[in-house]
Amino acid sequence: MGVTQIALGSYRVMDVCIAATAAIGGPKEGKGPLGPYFDEIWPSEDHKGTSFEQAERALIEDGMELAVKKSGMSWEDIDLVMGGDLLDQIVSTNFAARRHQRPLLGLFSACAVFTQGLGLGALLLAGNSARSILVAAVSHHMAAERQFRFPIELGYQRTPTAAWTATATGAVVLVSGTKHPTAIDAVTMGRVIDFGSKNPNDMGSAMAPAALDTIQRHLEATGTTLQDYDAVYTGDLGVMGTKMLTLLGKEHGLIFDYRFNDCGQILYHLKEQDVHNGGSGPGCSAGVFSGYLHQRLESGEWRRLLLIATGALFSPTTYQQGESIPCIAHAVSLVYRDRGGSSS
Amino acid sequence: MGVTQIALGSYRVMDVCIAATAAIGGPKEGKGPLGPYFDEIWPSEDHKGTSFEQAERALIEDGMELAVKKSGMSWEDIDLVMGGDLLDQIVSTNFAARRHQRPLLGLFSACAVFTQGLGLGALLLAGNSARSILVAAVSHHMAAERQFRFPIELGYQRTPTAAWTATATGAVVLVSGTKHPTAIDAVTMGRVIDFGSKNPNDMGSAMAPAALDTIQRHLEATGTTLQDYDAVYTGDLGVMGTKMLTLLGKEHGLIFDYRFNDCGQILYHLKEQDVHNGGSGPGCSAGVFSGYLHQRLESGEWRRLLLIATGALFSPTTYQQGESIPCIAHAVSLVYRDRGGSSS
Repeated sequence: MGVTQIALGSYRVMDVCIAATAAIGGPKEGKGPLGPYFDEIWPSEDHKGTSFEQAERALIEDGMELAVKKSGMSWEDIDLVMGGDLLDQIVSTNFAARRHQRPLLGLFSACAVFTQGLGLGALLLAGNSARSILVAAVSHHMAAERQFRFPIELGYQRTPTAAWTATATGAVVLVSGTKHPTAIDAVTMGRVIDFGSKNPNDMGSAMAPAALDTIQRHLEATGTTLQDYDAVYTGDLGVMGTKMLTLLGKEHGLIFDYRFNDCGQILYHLKEQDVHNGGSGPGCSAGVFSGYLHQRLESGEWRRLLLIATGALFSPTTYQQGESIPCIAHAVSLVYRDRGGSSS
Repeated sequence: MGVTQIALGSYRVMDVCIAATAAIGGPKEGKGPLGPYFDEIWPSEDHKGTSFEQAERALIEDGMELAVKKSGMSWEDIDLVMGGDLLDQIVSTNFAARRHQRPLLGLFSACAVFTQGLGLGALLLAGNSARSILVAAVSHHMAAERQFRFPIELGYQRTPTAAWTATATGAVVLVSGTKHPTAIDAVTMGRVIDFGSKNPNDMGSAMAPAALDTIQRHLEATGTTLQDYDAVYTGDLGVMGTKMLTLLGKEHGLIFDYRFNDCGQILYHLKEQDVHNGGSGPGCSAGVFSGYLHQRLESGEWRRLLLIATGALFSPTTYQQGESIPCIAHAVSLVYRDRGGSSS
């Protein structure tokens, strides 16, 4: 069997590799330090004069198309599509599926959905349920702002701890076998952790305990330490969240050293681009992985990467009703095996 | 291997059975024809004076607790929890996970999420990713109305084709092996079908083409006809949708005869209870299956059941932006094997 459950929610996975990734970002993401690593940068947040929501949908459609194209496969070769976004009823992912017409598994774990998809995809491939799965996630700054906070036209002032929802998408074609050098070798599915934070303008701090829980469980299950990885990236904890996770880690004997960083923290020039806590949104970890991180693996610079996307599972309704913010994080570890033979 | 992909998105599954189900309904559901088949009926839609959203969460929490209890297992035995609901950011499912603390896979396919969960759970169990998975779905009438239409306090008049979102939950403990008599033996994951309907007050008609697509694919993949099943149940097509599906089926050579019915159509006394098109919501198919349908199997009355939950994947935002309603349907076929030996 290609899957072994090694602890609660933790799995060793065999023979699952990445055939191709695609990352597309908005103009602000293009001007950030990772701009050169995106496959495409949209010239505008707007898309042919459509609504922000339609622009988000076009973004994930483009990302999926490009990933399939880069894999050298066709849509007919894709057995399943899975993914998600932040919009109510994950409409970007759902509407995009009208076009590709492949079986769809809609997922939701807010900004953690990219590794939820990668992890679940790996389990299904290793369990013989598919031979190729497309995983994608997306977010659009303006669409998210007006759903969760205020329309950007309002010009309201952001708090210093607020994150900047990225306009970005990342899509990955996962396939069974060992043909491609970058493989997923372990997965840990998160559980919901709620430390009682009620501040939707500081989600990094709210999510850090969930990231810690998943990382601890993943390391324990796989018998590894943080120092066994060349790089450890969380999804969108940002400046506050990475500080919080580092502190929490210290209390639990985990040293988050130079290997550790956060997709949201590296996506932008934090001060110059005025993004405060850093990038966030499902497209943040999806875009950063599918561009920059994956290229670090494929170039052989890193041999092992632990990626932990993080999600805050509240809604505007629960916030207005005075509830705290439950959070989750899903982890996948990736290994670069340098077998060559990639056709992509 | 316990899973074989027999066609696009269609799978034969071995050694996955149902350890227990639990169904809880609201007072209106209790007064319907299926009232006696629910494990519990809440005396009120209200729950200890909390909000409707908190009531929905309590409902799924209660359902999950009861399913685990009825299975004779404990929470520690549950490897994964998966499921969903209709509320934005599936907050009922996500907040409920604070309590059970098991790894969570949040799913979204609107009212199709129950069979998405059963199907995905079956694939993961048969693929060796878990030994026990709890699948649950929930909806609450008042919480759904005020999110998708209007607050019920407004007392607006419903259109004749409008569905009645059920206050109900259904939870199923799936386990690997053959210990229990009711098994999932095949799964077909849906693709998104959009016939261009824009009427959110007639979702049965909008969803019928998606149901047809999944049923056709399932029958073709498994080499069965509708007449090979003792019962064929869609999720929440209601009066209009079942008529539409019957007509569409005829055009495609499928005879939807007395074996065919719809969970939404049988949940209420349609006229006496003034529910117009019938029941809907993720809790509709989940509650009807976990109570009535599962008991028909366990009593040996039916040997084979095809269950196809149906979902309309729009949001209030996409509706207001003038978009049509993409739909999806996921199918699972169940077989009663009368092996005995059930400990539940």
